[in-house]
Amino acid sequence: MKDVKGFIIDLDGTVYTGVYAIPGAIEAVKKLQSFNIPYVFLSNRGNYSRAMCEAKLKGMGLSVDPERIVLSSTVTARFLLQQYPGEAVWPFGDPGLAEELRSHGVVMAEQPEHAKWLVITLHEHLTYAELNQAFRAVRHGARIIATNEDKMFPTEAGDCIDVAGMIGAIVHATGEPVSHVMGKPSTIMANAALSVLGLAPEQCIVVGDSLTSDIGLGSMHGMKTALVLTGNATQQDIDCAEQRPDYISNDLLQLVNDFEVECGLR
Amino acid sequence: MKDVKGFIIDLDGTVYTGVYAIPGAIEAVKKLQSFNIPYVFLSNRGNYSRAMCEAKLKGMGLSVDPERIVLSSTVTARFLLQQYPGEAVWPFGDPGLAEELRSHGVVMAEQPEHAKWLVITLHEHLTYAELNQAFRAVRHGARIIATNEDKMFPTEAGDCIDVAGMIGAIVHATGEPVSHVMGKPSTIMANAALSVLGLAPEQCIVVGDSLTSDIGLGSMHGMKTALVLTGNATQQDIDCAEQRPDYISNDLLQLVNDFEVECGLR
Repeated sequence: MKDVKGFIIDLDGTVYTGVYAIPGAIEAVKKLQSFNIPYVFLSNRGNYSRAMCEAKLKGMGLSVDPERIVLSSTVTARFLLQQYPGEAVWPFGDPGLAEELRSHGVVMAEQPEHAKWLVITLHEHLTYAELNQAFRAVRHGARIIATNEDKMFPTEAGDCIDVAGMIGAIVHATGEPVSHVMGKPSTIMANAALSVLGLAPEQCIVVGDSLTSDIGLGSMHGMKTALVLTGNATQQDIDCAEQRPDYISNDLLQLVNDFEVECGLR
Repeated sequence: MKDVKGFIIDLDGTVYTGVYAIPGAIEAVKKLQSFNIPYVFLSNRGNYSRAMCEAKLKGMGLSVDPERIVLSSTVTARFLLQQYPGEAVWPFGDPGLAEELRSHGVVMAEQPEHAKWLVITLHEHLTYAELNQAFRAVRHGARIIATNEDKMFPTEAGDCIDVAGMIGAIVHATGEPVSHVMGKPSTIMANAALSVLGLAPEQCIVVGDSLTSDIGLGSMHGMKTALVLTGNATQQDIDCAEQRPDYISNDLLQLVNDFEVECGLR
């Protein structure tokens, strides 16, 4: 780990689970802050805004510059501004999506029928009326962007249906395809993280709990990879995985401690 | 139409639109009743029970024996009882589905995780919590039955997403296929209607507003077919259709009037 100059850190399942911080995770990030090691949080959450995320981490005792938070909603907003400037959007997801899009200056359609794009993310407060609005946006010509395409996420109450459910509903009923998917392991997410760090891929390590999203992103883009066992992946998943991580740690704190020792920072 | 001995009549878009009877439709059915011509209502609605449907028609001034009402929820209930007796079901749809399944004696699972079958129909009061229960049923091994697979239905407020949206959400997020689809134009629906009428297919005419569901069912099963222009299909759809109906009428009353004249009943 001696060559590692910067950390790309996943959030759900790595730093927190639901509303609870994972033991040691906040301490681990504070260590990176105290060593002046560049880091960025990179999350497939599209139903949060960076402001919501900053407030959540603050509530756990961690102060973070929002520029160090990159969500799939953030990357979707930047992509739309750059590739389709001025084109009106209809958001289909929890309110954090619209908040993030608006904070970047993305134009929101006043009615679904007027939208050029339907942006789909996880919607944990979904209603039939909203599903119908999304359906009508596409029936009237809006193309589809998904912030990510995760199928499920674990909670204490059991596995929950993720954005793939919302995508499936619209795609299956309209017959229209998804034009763009933003989330990890995409190159657009990798580049967004590298740009915050100002580092080359080989100088970075990606830390996360998902083999496909986090380890996948690192492997595909020439970064080092570390899997933590505090979230999605189990030892069995690792044994069956095509892409094996460079490191496996029980949690984020153990990984940062190992880094500290190997780099002689302790 | 002289050989026609019985009528198979669609409901939505043929007899009523939403809560409103289509002008002349009730009068048309009353004429069939007065001529003692056997008829059956055959509908892809899976989110209604026959009792709800009987009450709705009664509110429009038409008294109908519930045995003359065959919905996709009715056929689903009978199919489950016959093919998978005693297997517990989790319903995902408006309350009418569960009401119809229960009225046939289908066993309902107490929790989604215990269900052998997930039955999907249109859910106009969908919540994320219910979507999640359906997701968990399939994640824990339930196989999927859909009452029908219609993609959309028209209302005065605009086109609405139909059961295909609910199916797409579950199939896309779980990766599991739909094992059975019950609705028109299936043979199981055709046989259910013929069994009420006690007639051979060639003695029956199917009347409906959908080229795929109604005209499709009639064409595939050797029945005469009549399209009414009070619902889904437009003249343009007819021009592009693979299966053309034997008759095209402005509405159900016009069709029954023509039948009356051709058969010398007037």
